[in-house]
Amino acid sequence: MTTAEPTPPRRRGRPGYDQATILHTAVDLFNRRGYDATSMGDLAKVLGVTKPAIYHHFTSKEELLKAALDDALDELTAVVDEASRRQEGATAYERLREVVRRSVEVLVAHQPSVTLLLRVRGNSAVELAALERRRWLDERLAELVAAAVAEGALRADLAPTLVSRLLFGMVNSLVEWYRPHGAFTPATVADAIAAVAFDGLTSSNTRP
Amino acid sequence: MTTAEPTPPRRRGRPGYDQATILHTAVDLFNRRGYDATSMGDLAKVLGVTKPAIYHHFTSKEELLKAALDDALDELTAVVDEASRRQEGATAYERLREVVRRSVEVLVAHQPSVTLLLRVRGNSAVELAALERRRWLDERLAELVAAAVAEGALRADLAPTLVSRLLFGMVNSLVEWYRPHGAFTPATVADAIAAVAFDGLTSSNTRP
Repeated sequence: MTTAEPTPPRRRGRPGYDQATILHTAVDLFNRRGYDATSMGDLAKVLGVTKPAIYHHFTSKEELLKAALDDALDELTAVVDEASRRQEGATAYERLREVVRRSVEVLVAHQPSVTLLLRVRGNSAVELAALERRRWLDERLAELVAAAVAEGALRADLAPTLVSRLLFGMVNSLVEWYRPHGAFTPATVADAIAAVAFDGLTSSNTRP
Repeated sequence: MTTAEPTPPRRRGRPGYDQATILHTAVDLFNRRGYDATSMGDLAKVLGVTKPAIYHHFTSKEELLKAALDDALDELTAVVDEASRRQEGATAYERLREVVRRSVEVLVAHQPSVTLLLRVRGNSAVELAALERRRWLDERLAELVAAAVAEGALRADLAPTLVSRLLFGMVNSLVEWYRPHGAFTPATVADAIAAVAFDGLTSSNTRP
């Protein structure tokens, strides 16, 4: 699984793998095989360590799941929080565009943990808590769309909750196909989403 | 699981459940728990029948998966095929709008099997074959977008493959949140997607 590594930095705990590497490998396995179908034994096998070497860092599979979901949720929450803090001076429309741009950056930089988050179905207390945090985020995004409609920047003939679902549905769909070293940079994708969603695809809407 | 049913129609095979009910229940379980984490024993338990009663209709779990994925893929392929057959008379732009509208209808009418399809990761021959068919569909959609750009209807400053990903990413995101008896009808959602994607969200783009 791993290629030769030049003198690794001193790591906490047993030799071989640190906490971040274990988490990264676990998330990758969860995404490829499904969380329920992956056991701590599978993870130990892929890492080439014993199960106790993993338990030294994470007490359970659910703790690994929680760490990954919190990673994604903390980043997305920070995006929404920053947008509200910029309230003075910026219009809701400006803040919405900024949230779209920053969300794309987070999805690209944290693609594995966001992918896991978007597939959560609520099968455990950890998953239900993550769904609750997602719902909170969805409500903030719908409020921001509603505010942009209220200030006259966005068209008023579509329900803000529906617009918010579709706009961030388009953003979230990135995790399914975006490849970090593929044809499109995060900035290109963020600009394209803003162009499609705000200006529209028909040629009469092209901005100079 | 079931409520009282008025005199059910005569069914093939053992009493209790027909093929469609078994498939429907299996897809629901796969979506809730994950395909790999669901066993034929789990399915038998939920249906309240023995495993042989299921094997009478489906020889394996993989056959259930294949039936569900084919259901989704056949419907989506029909949408794309119909759009190409309407070639005479209709512009690429008109066909693209029609594909978006019909895709929304398919996603709503076949939400469970499309959900399963969109989560396929390629873990088996059946999944790889489904991914291959999805790729074929993605290529047809990107060609249609490119044709609409070439005829001058859509803006030319965005890569057609990227536009196609984003447009159908927005369409596909429906399966994550759409509820059949919720606030929005399929027609409302299809109109909103067309409005957002083609005309844009900014109020200056509102069509009378």
